[in-house]
Amino acid sequence: MPPCPALLADRFNTLRYDADAGAVTLLDRRKYPFAVEYVRCQTVEEVAQAVETMIVQGGPPLAYAAGLGLALSSPDEASYRAAAARLLATRPTADDLHHLIPAALAAAMTALAAGDDPKNAILTLVNFQIECGNTVSRLCGQHAADLLADGDRVLTHCFAGAALCWMLWIAKGQGKRVHLYPTETRPYLQGARLTAQSAVEMGIPCTLITDGMPAHLMSQGMIDTFICAADRITMDGHITNKVGTFQIALAAHYHRLPFYVLGYDGPDPATASGAAIPIEWRDGREVLHLAGQRTAVEGIDALYPAFDITPPHLIAGIVTDRGVFPAHLIRQYWAPEPRQEAANVT
Amino acid sequence: MPPCPALLADRFNTLRYDADAGAVTLLDRRKYPFAVEYVRCQTVEEVAQAVETMIVQGGPPLAYAAGLGLALSSPDEASYRAAAARLLATRPTADDLHHLIPAALAAAMTALAAGDDPKNAILTLVNFQIECGNTVSRLCGQHAADLLADGDRVLTHCFAGAALCWMLWIAKGQGKRVHLYPTETRPYLQGARLTAQSAVEMGIPCTLITDGMPAHLMSQGMIDTFICAADRITMDGHITNKVGTFQIALAAHYHRLPFYVLGYDGPDPATASGAAIPIEWRDGREVLHLAGQRTAVEGIDALYPAFDITPPHLIAGIVTDRGVFPAHLIRQYWAPEPRQEAANVT
Repeated sequence: MPPCPALLADRFNTLRYDADAGAVTLLDRRKYPFAVEYVRCQTVEEVAQAVETMIVQGGPPLAYAAGLGLALSSPDEASYRAAAARLLATRPTADDLHHLIPAALAAAMTALAAGDDPKNAILTLVNFQIECGNTVSRLCGQHAADLLADGDRVLTHCFAGAALCWMLWIAKGQGKRVHLYPTETRPYLQGARLTAQSAVEMGIPCTLITDGMPAHLMSQGMIDTFICAADRITMDGHITNKVGTFQIALAAHYHRLPFYVLGYDGPDPATASGAAIPIEWRDGREVLHLAGQRTAVEGIDALYPAFDITPPHLIAGIVTDRGVFPAHLIRQYWAPEPRQEAANVT
Repeated sequence: MPPCPALLADRFNTLRYDADAGAVTLLDRRKYPFAVEYVRCQTVEEVAQAVETMIVQGGPPLAYAAGLGLALSSPDEASYRAAAARLLATRPTADDLHHLIPAALAAAMTALAAGDDPKNAILTLVNFQIECGNTVSRLCGQHAADLLADGDRVLTHCFAGAALCWMLWIAKGQGKRVHLYPTETRPYLQGARLTAQSAVEMGIPCTLITDGMPAHLMSQGMIDTFICAADRITMDGHITNKVGTFQIALAAHYHRLPFYVLGYDGPDPATASGAAIPIEWRDGREVLHLAGQRTAVEGIDALYPAFDITPPHLIAGIVTDRGVFPAHLIRQYWAPEPRQEAANVT
């Protein structure tokens, strides 16, 4: 398999710790690809604000950025604990952040206790996690590619991340002609920018639609499958993803089209069910503007729930690095006994 | 009932024939309310292009504009027929245009045959239709207001026109506190502009959401009813409206929330069923931009079906000037026998 040419398929392309500068460098995903700008964060607070303002977005990438950010803390226990708390408070919904920061903090504490370099311990752990995450993305993309047929017209929402890139790239390598239909995904337009740009970089035909069009295209027989990512998957098979996913899932279900979730490294063992997912409400003013331009009239307000929740009965399957699971059985991802699907992972 | 303060509640505010200038003057709805500009059309072709480019939008208003435009033709039979054909070709989906232009053409032909002034005949007919349309809007709004309860949170999509304004204004007069949630409605943002501005002008609280948020708000118990207009209603109860309506209707149905259609003057007797509705596909490039600014990457294309179709089983009722009809029974709007509801119209 030749390397995937999409910039966003490899997280090391977009976020890294720069030892010479003592800084975390992040691709500004709010502007990409219209501008390819890297933001240099030299303090924990700068990294936290970069995560909050969506300079880096997507469950795993923002977790990695925050993890690298922890390394910018002063190297003492109190500072690390404060930095971890600050970074954990940036965004509530995606679970990766809430697993990686405690792990990185624990590594720092262990190093401090042992007289080792805590910054080095954090960076080693986080960089290893990024490497693992890249592998998970490729494996998840491989399993998803195996679900596609030649000629499939795939609807997607927001930017489903590195696994989406790998799915499209591997399917192309398998000789399958896939046509991608991303929704533009207001208000940040991740579909019109990140997803569409990744498709262009891989030579995948791509046709943009607005967030209101999925059901109509389905009714016209123009879509074969709906595939997106999840910011958190619960042990009972609920998924949360960029707001808008739920109503597209409803439309897919109505039209008897499969909805597959790119589930990366599986459900969050700490989240039992959908009701336990904390949905982030962002500043409603983000909905009143587009790319800095006011798009709504004065005298009104707006809401911005960043995510919604889709229940398992609307999901045809959750695709992970260990294979495809029925949503209702996604807890088996963590089952102690080896599963047939898991054994088949190459 | 004091007059409704929303500018768009009275079509004479936004389109008229200016006898002195020999021109049709149209509010530019693509810019309103950010700019209040009136476009002066001096030829049939200029009116046709104004309709095509959505300087005027909405089923009845665009029909009225085109009808007034017919009066700009040279006053001979061949010219009138060519002008009517040109105006009919502007937009296929809403039925008002396709009834008004033949009627206005017939009026001109009758006047020509009788030696009367054909331009005068057209203007008399169209202005009378605008007056009737204003009355229809007010009556439809009255019946819709009667469906609302104090405290209702009403979701709407695109701009549902004068009847929506009247509904909100009459409900307010009834002492009902209604909160409006318009979707912004990409790509033209009619919700963020026309609907929101009308709410502001009437003092109705208004909270904007993106086109991807309706299902999530419903799942959180934040919406009581979904109400929008229809560009065409078929005799078997299908409705076509701005693309996005269908998937919101699916979400409302899933959440057991009523979806009411502001049906103005009822179904199109010439359209038996949903399959017979011609859906307009506009230039996909309109989806790649917002307010003149490129919002999508290069190297992709886009689709813009302007409307979608919602079947009757997803509709709780169609509200007309003659009362509320179950969607499956909307053909009774044209029933020859007096109906109870019709008799009750004040």
